Amino acid sequence: MKRLKTIDWVDDGVVIIDQTRLPGELIYQRIDNVEAMFHAIRELRVRGAPAIGIAAAFGCYIAIADFPEQGSVDDLLTLLEKNGDYLADSRPTAVNLVWAVNRMKKRALELVPTAAVTGIKNKLLQEALAILDEDRRMGRAIGEHGAKLLANVSSILTHCNAGGLATAEYGTALAPVYVAAEQGKLFTVYADETRPLLQGARITAFELQQAGIPVILICDNMAATVMERGKVGAVIVGADRITANGDTANKIGTYGVALLAKAHNIPFYVAAPSSTFDLNLTTGRAIPIEERRAEEITCGFGKRTAPDGVAVFNPAFDVTPAELICAFVTEKGVIRPPFGRGIREVVGGGDRL
Amino acid sequence: MKRLKTIDWVDDGVVIIDQTRLPGELIYQRIDNVEAMFHAIRELRVRGAPAIGIAAAFGCYIAIADFPEQGSVDDLLTLLEKNGDYLADSRPTAVNLVWAVNRMKKRALELVPTAAVTGIKNKLLQEALAILDEDRRMGRAIGEHGAKLLANVSSILTHCNAGGLATAEYGTALAPVYVAAEQGKLFTVYADETRPLLQGARITAFELQQAGIPVILICDNMAATVMERGKVGAVIVGADRITANGDTANKIGTYGVALLAKAHNIPFYVAAPSSTFDLNLTTGRAIPIEERRAEEITCGFGKRTAPDGVAVFNPAFDVTPAELICAFVTEKGVIRPPFGRGIREVVGGGDRL
Repeated sequence: MKRLKTIDWVDDGVVIIDQTRLPGELIYQRIDNVEAMFHAIRELRVRGAPAIGIAAAFGCYIAIADFPEQGSVDDLLTLLEKNGDYLADSRPTAVNLVWAVNRMKKRALELVPTAAVTGIKNKLLQEALAILDEDRRMGRAIGEHGAKLLANVSSILTHCNAGGLATAEYGTALAPVYVAAEQGKLFTVYADETRPLLQGARITAFELQQAGIPVILICDNMAATVMERGKVGAVIVGADRITANGDTANKIGTYGVALLAKAHNIPFYVAAPSSTFDLNLTTGRAIPIEERRAEEITCGFGKRTAPDGVAVFNPAFDVTPAELICAFVTEKGVIRPPFGRGIREVVGGGDRL
Repeated sequence: MKRLKTIDWVDDGVVIIDQTRLPGELIYQRIDNVEAMFHAIRELRVRGAPAIGIAAAFGCYIAIADFPEQGSVDDLLTLLEKNGDYLADSRPTAVNLVWAVNRMKKRALELVPTAAVTGIKNKLLQEALAILDEDRRMGRAIGEHGAKLLANVSSILTHCNAGGLATAEYGTALAPVYVAAEQGKLFTVYADETRPLLQGARITAFELQQAGIPVILICDNMAATVMERGKVGAVIVGADRITANGDTANKIGTYGVALLAKAHNIPFYVAAPSSTFDLNLTTGRAIPIEERRAEEITCGFGKRTAPDGVAVFNPAFDVTPAELICAFVTEKGVIRPPFGRGIREVVGGGDRL
């Protein structure tokens, strides 16, 4: 099965797939400075909460990679701090971004007592590579837990892209589909196209097609009809941030899909690594929701599709309340309601910095 | 207030606004043969159930307008029959299309005993003009009933376009908004963009903006969020066909919006003229649902947005079950549940042929 390398470390540099060019072109882009990484994240060339965490970690390393050997450790830390904060600002909703930046900063602080500049730099590269590797193993583990959870289901519906292209390799919501395929079971996947940026049409449909998984593309507003016709055994989506009570921020439209699933008695699952849980927030009301430019809606297809000057509301995410979620699939296992305790156990404590 | 003439009879010919060119260009197109009318309907240059009824009526007249004065009445009837059936075939779901064609045929049959060819032709033109005029009065009456129904509401959400551009002038779902504006009350209208063909973005946003009504454009998958934030006082949509029990076929996505409205305790209304009710069908299961080309989804805007060869499901309509509908707004008044009896009273009998 062909799985794409969303983000990778190749010949001393980061290489990403430029996802804004999909599905027309599969372009690999080398990122060699921190500003380029900031813009790659902001402009969604690399996207998906886990993948932008990895990107931010490499971004932190790139920011200090050329720091002179004879410089002071304090200056190195200041440079890391400044560029980490800059990268953390590239998108506001996904917690993995801040999580990865904080992990890099924390690692640097641990190293200060015993290492010099070159040693710290090398260890920070190793830390970023570890985040990448953990993400690959995380996806595989989510896939195994999810494939078991979905054992009695033959078709799923997903929203946006929480597939391999949202992570290093396996994905989160699509990981069970890939693991099941390795085990000889082919799911049918209904993919919401996911307006305005069409991650479902451009990315989910693309990566499933590349992997030989049956995929049927629909517009977002067709999900209710597909469910009503009995075509959907389960809904499974990714997450950008999950609060202590299980409220889940994910791509705009997820909340509506969860309500539609409930109305049709279809189980609704969220697949996410433990790094997506943010125990600092008690409920979803505290999650900042990014609002994006009107032009994504009014002229997203290279052609103006709404009148000039029309008012637009364009939130990038919504929050699905915990009570609509039947289970979380994490790399450490499946969490079932009531969520509070299971989430605390999986995440293993409050402050991950 | 500026209301556009969707379809009109000007200088012995039909003139339509080519809605496939909106919102970029406001182009009036003259239709002078029945094939051109068939394609204008099929390609959605004229769209909206009431408007295509009017278009079909004029199409029937155009088909026989050049029939020679010295020809036989039987041949005239045969020609009308043949072209009426051809026009009725241009789109499968809207009942108004068949209703208008049948009305033209019935009028011709009534005239046969007393009129010659020229007389029949003139009276058929008058019949088409009567359908146009009735549609204008129908829209105004729906608007008055709807404005009263929505007296305590200041913002609505609508899906697709059931506005002036779906009818001769006032529209159905938007008629209450226009009538309220004449009375000095400006609603705020949330317009679902309505994939795949974006009638909400291209047409609803355009006509409301032209009329000076506050409109906020959203993607279909944002409706749940707007509702959850308390921004929507009521949902009001049009209809393509309503069965005897109140089940309602309308643009794909309507059923989902109705479920979301219910989940947020927001009233869901359907505005439609009595000609939209089809008492020959007992429930929505009997309504044929048009499926359209994959390309509408995969490359709808001059740019391919999904991988080549991907499977697509593209139903043009869905059916909202009667139990999700709080009331119908017709030109004859508001129908409340249980619907069966109210619908029979408003429509006034079973067979409208």
